[in-house]
Parts: sequence; structure tokens; C-alpha cells
Amino acid sequence: MEKIMKNKEWTAIWREGHTVFIIDQTKLPFNFEIVELRTYIATANAIRDMLLRGAGTIGVAAGYAMAQAVAEYSNEEMLEKAKYYIESARPTAQNLFYATNRVYQEARNAEDPIKRAFQTADDILHEDEKHSRIMGELGAELLHNGSQILTHYNAGKLAIQGWGSALAPIYVAHEQGKNIFVYADETRPRLQGAQLTAWELKQAGIPHAIIADNAAGYFMLKKIIDIVFVGADRIACNGDVANKIGTYEKAVLAKENNIQFYVIAPCSTIDFACSCGKKIPIENRPSEEVIEIGSILVGNPDSDALNPAFDVTPAKYITGIITEKGIHKPENIGTLH
Amino acid sequence: MEKIMKNKEWTAIWREGHTVFIIDQTKLPFNFEIVELRTYIATANAIRDMLLRGAGTIGVAAGYAMAQAVAEYSNEEMLEKAKYYIESARPTAQNLFYATNRVYQEARNAEDPIKRAFQTADDILHEDEKHSRIMGELGAELLHNGSQILTHYNAGKLAIQGWGSALAPIYVAHEQGKNIFVYADETRPRLQGAQLTAWELKQAGIPHAIIADNAAGYFMLKKIIDIVFVGADRIACNGDVANKIGTYEKAVLAKENNIQFYVIAPCSTIDFACSCGKKIPIENRPSEEVIEIGSILVGNPDSDALNPAFDVTPAKYITGIITEKGIHKPENIGTLH
Repeated sequence: MEKIMKNKEWTAIWREGHTVFIIDQTKLPFNFEIVELRTYIATANAIRDMLLRGAGTIGVAAGYAMAQAVAEYSNEEMLEKAKYYIESARPTAQNLFYATNRVYQEARNAEDPIKRAFQTADDILHEDEKHSRIMGELGAELLHNGSQILTHYNAGKLAIQGWGSALAPIYVAHEQGKNIFVYADETRPRLQGAQLTAWELKQAGIPHAIIADNAAGYFMLKKIIDIVFVGADRIACNGDVANKIGTYEKAVLAKENNIQFYVIAPCSTIDFACSCGKKIPIENRPSEEVIEIGSILVGNPDSDALNPAFDVTPAKYITGIITEKGIHKPENIGTLH
Repeated sequence: MEKIMKNKEWTAIWREGHTVFIIDQTKLPFNFEIVELRTYIATANAIRDMLLRGAGTIGVAAGYAMAQAVAEYSNEEMLEKAKYYIESARPTAQNLFYATNRVYQEARNAEDPIKRAFQTADDILHEDEKHSRIMGELGAELLHNGSQILTHYNAGKLAIQGWGSALAPIYVAHEQGKNIFVYADETRPRLQGAQLTAWELKQAGIPHAIIADNAAGYFMLKKIIDIVFVGADRIACNGDVANKIGTYEKAVLAKENNIQFYVIAPCSTIDFACSCGKKIPIENRPSEEVIEIGSILVGNPDSDALNPAFDVTPAKYITGIITEKGIHKPENIGTLH
């Protein structure tokens, strides 16, 4: 925690001994609050209550929660119960199961289970950082002085440890001294672009502007935006990509205007059991997310709203998918298995 | 006003004697407030302060304000000053100048100038209603049982007297007993879709849902939306259309998904002096409209925002333009002169 304050640097999650620290993402960008999680239950509840979000960050937190449980219980039955409790926090998050299983298995076979559990969780975090760096360096090669990048949603350091996924090339290009400018779609309904991406870019001193999602097409048609970077929630074997609602719109607009459209995501996002995007189920979220912001009414209160949380961008709109293994044509993504 | 209350009907602007009544559109959809405007200054200030909006409604209000001025002054110099005051209320609104000039000229040559002035302003309102009805009937022919329509922004009865422009075919088809469903883009940043369009549709009992602008593509790709109706701010001679920001995005998505995309606007919207959309200047509005809603911060307060208020949809994305003179191919719109 001291490190953060001194260097004006920040990270979404870290540990000191058996205690986990996170930035409360529900408070950003208006308040920067660090939460201390001393027990596996506290960490699991922070996942459940979405104080942290993003596939990578959820996975790391789940790994630490499992390690905390190992430190709290030596009884096998209690440990199994704790594992189940952690896994119930966000039951659809693939990275969460991966992390709890890995930490649990490693601890089980270790001479010093507690030490091994925390080291394994640290490993997960460091692997994410390494993958993020590779993706950032690959993507940064596509950027040059004057590049104007559109991004949608938040796929930054808050979501994946290190430099994020979609934002990784932007962080790396900025480090390399390239003069770039980022258009951050505000990303209705939950405004993660206006709140989290804009906050991240501001902390890093990267020139940027928030735009209404409606304005992205305007800046593409004017040839002001020259490349689009987005993350992914799930990638099907044929290269179709599920991501935050609105991603499909930007992909079609990019293709229509001959603008490169890249998806940036670690290989763990590829679902090798899923043959194509049509098989990815889309979550419909409450209408209140559209009609209210916080507790403020912003739409006609007597009207219904429909709120699909994700969409699927067909592979044909995607220039390339950047993973820690390289830049791939979307149609080849299924061969990475 | 009694009429409104009795029949649960409403209209954006009307007069009783020399008094003008309007719905305060800044309060919708949360409060329904009628404002009484007894002097030309009160009416002009209501235009200036945007208590009313929409090209048609502004024109009608300007006509009534001019008639009120004719009733208040017989002195030519005072009347000229009043005319100038009204015209300064929203200096870029074409309909405003048209209305003040027409009422002023008619009154000048009349035996009973006051009577003639109010009658002329009434005529402007009734002509708008007539045009709206014709556009509504033409557009309703494109709708059938089960039609699912996307609309963007508010181009309804609040904006143009009668049945609006983009919403006119929807009102008429509903009257005809056709079973239709409307997807109303919320239309960030100022949310006129979520607030005004949704309110209008609810009053009329027309089934609808508000969606985030990001979700329109999702419903098009799924072939749920089968036609798009939008209004226009200005139409160039080559059929390019300037309208609320985000219209261009929906037009590209409609074309990509083989969905019909119609612009509905009276001939007064065609700018015969403007050869193509590139010559239409686009207003950049304050960044606060993106980062704040009301006085509530919704985006990172340290970040800039860019806020173009309109975009230009090239003619090639438009299936047809519906005016009071018929349904036209966009490339023929310049021949209506």
C-alpha cells in the first residue's frame, strides 16, 4: 500500500502476507478507496459484490481467497466448503474456477501448504502480468506517432493485471514515447469507459477524450480514428468474439471505414468447446441499468427497457486477435489449442 | 388546456386568445407542466431557454410570439425590435425566421393586423399538422402487423405538430390497429429517446422499449428490428442527411443487415443551397453534457469529453426520404425544389 502512495502507481489487487488489498472499483472514478481483505470470506464477498471486476482480476482474487482458506483451515471438509463458497461468488467466471482449483491442488501436494498456496496465487498474478506485457508489446507495434485509437468498455489494468488487454498496447506505446490519443467510448449502460478507462488513462497521463457511444462512427467517418482495440469476454473457435454490448456496432463501422479492428485477450479467453458465436449465451440484465444511473432516473420511468449485456462480433469484422502467443487471423484462433 | 385534461390528449403548443400554452419539455418525462406565455417576451424566452424544442415547434412558437408582439405594439419601430428579439432566441433555427417573417408580412398588409397575425401563426401550425399526417400515412404503408421499428432521438409530436416526423408513421400504424413494437435508442448524451420518445409512446399506449444506443446493432444482427425511422435536421441536395449524433451509426448497421432505413422530414428541412453533407457545419457542444447528467457526475471528472451534436449520414445508406410530397430516393431530393 505504501508503494502505491509513494510512486503514484496503482494496481487493482495485491497481497501483503495473508492479507489481500484491492481498489474498490465500485467507487471509481469519484473515490479512490483501498479495501483490506483479511479472510477468505471477505475476499469472496468482494468478488460477489463486484468491488473488483474483470476476468483476470477475479481469477487472481479467487486464487488469493483459496490461499486464505488454506491458511484458515487444515480440515479437508472445511476447505472444500470454503472452495465452494469462493466458486459461488460469480459462478460464470471461468478464471475463478481455474484459480481455485490450481491453488487447491498445489497446496494439497505441498510440504508447506500455506506457503505453496500463496505462491501459486502469486504465480497466477505474475503470469497474467507477463501475458499482458506480451500482448501490449505486440499491439504497440501497430501504433505510431499520431495514432488515434478507439476503445470500448474497460479492458485495462483494473481488469487484467499488468497493463490490461485492450489498453496494454496503449500503455506500452505511451511508455515508448509514442504520441497517441485515445477515444474512450463511455459504454452505456454502465459507463465503464467514461468511468474506469478514462480514470486509468488520466492516471497514466495518456491524452484521451470520453465520447458518447453514438459519436464513434462520426470520428471514424472523418478518418480521425485509425485503429480500434477491444477486449473479449469469450472467443469461439471460428473467431467470433463476445464482448461488452456495442462492440459489434464499432466493428461494423470500422470495417465500413477501412479501419483496423483488433481484439486483445489472453488465450484463456478462447472457448475451444464453442464452435461459433451463435452458441454463446447472452446475459440480459435488469432494465434499471438503462433507466437509472445510480439511483437517479434518466429515462421515462413507465417504460420498459431491454438490456443485453454483451454482443457477438462475427469474425469477418475482426482484423486480428492478439494473444500472448501472437497476432492471429480470427479464423485461425481455434488452432491455438 | 381543458381539452388536454379531459381526453388525456396532449399537444406541445396551442393558444387561447392571445395566450400561448406549451408543455415544458425540460421537465419531461418526470413532470408534466404546462406553461402559460402571455407576452411575446415570455414566448421568445421559452424558445431561448429550450422549454420547447424541435424545428416545427420552434417555428410555431415564433409565429405566435410575433403575433403577440403585433398585439402589444402598433408602433413599427417597436415591432421591428420585437421581431429581432424573437429571432435572436435560437439564431440557427430556419423555421423561426420563416415564421416571424410570414406573420409580420401578413399582419402588415391586413385590415385587422392582430387577427391576421394570430391566424397566420395558426396556419403555420395547421400546415405542420397536415404535412405530419401525410408523412405518417406514407410511412405507415411500410409497416404491418409484427413490424419492429428502431428510432433514434425524438422526432415526435413534441418536435413537429400533429404526429411528428419519424414517429408519425408509428402513430398512424397504431391508429390503424397494426400490432407494432418500437425500440427507442436512448440517444446519449442528452437522452431525448429515453426521456421524450419513450414518454410519447407511453402516452399513446404504443408497445416499446428503451435500449442503450449500443444495443441497436445487437437487435439488428438478430433480425429483430426490421425497419428504422429517423428525422432530420438538414437534408443536402444530394440526399445526405444531418441528424442527431448516432444516426450515421444506425444507418451503416441497417445497411449491413439489409434493414430499410427511412428519413422522415418535411420539405422545409431540405437545404437547396447545400450541395452535399460535407458542407453542413456540425455543432460541438459542451463536454459537460457527456460527463454529467443533470448535475450528477457520470464520467471521470478529470477527463475531457468530445461532444459533436450531429452527424451526417451519406445518401448511400438511406433507403428513402419521406416528405409531405411523397417517398423519394435520396439522390432525387434536390429535384423537389
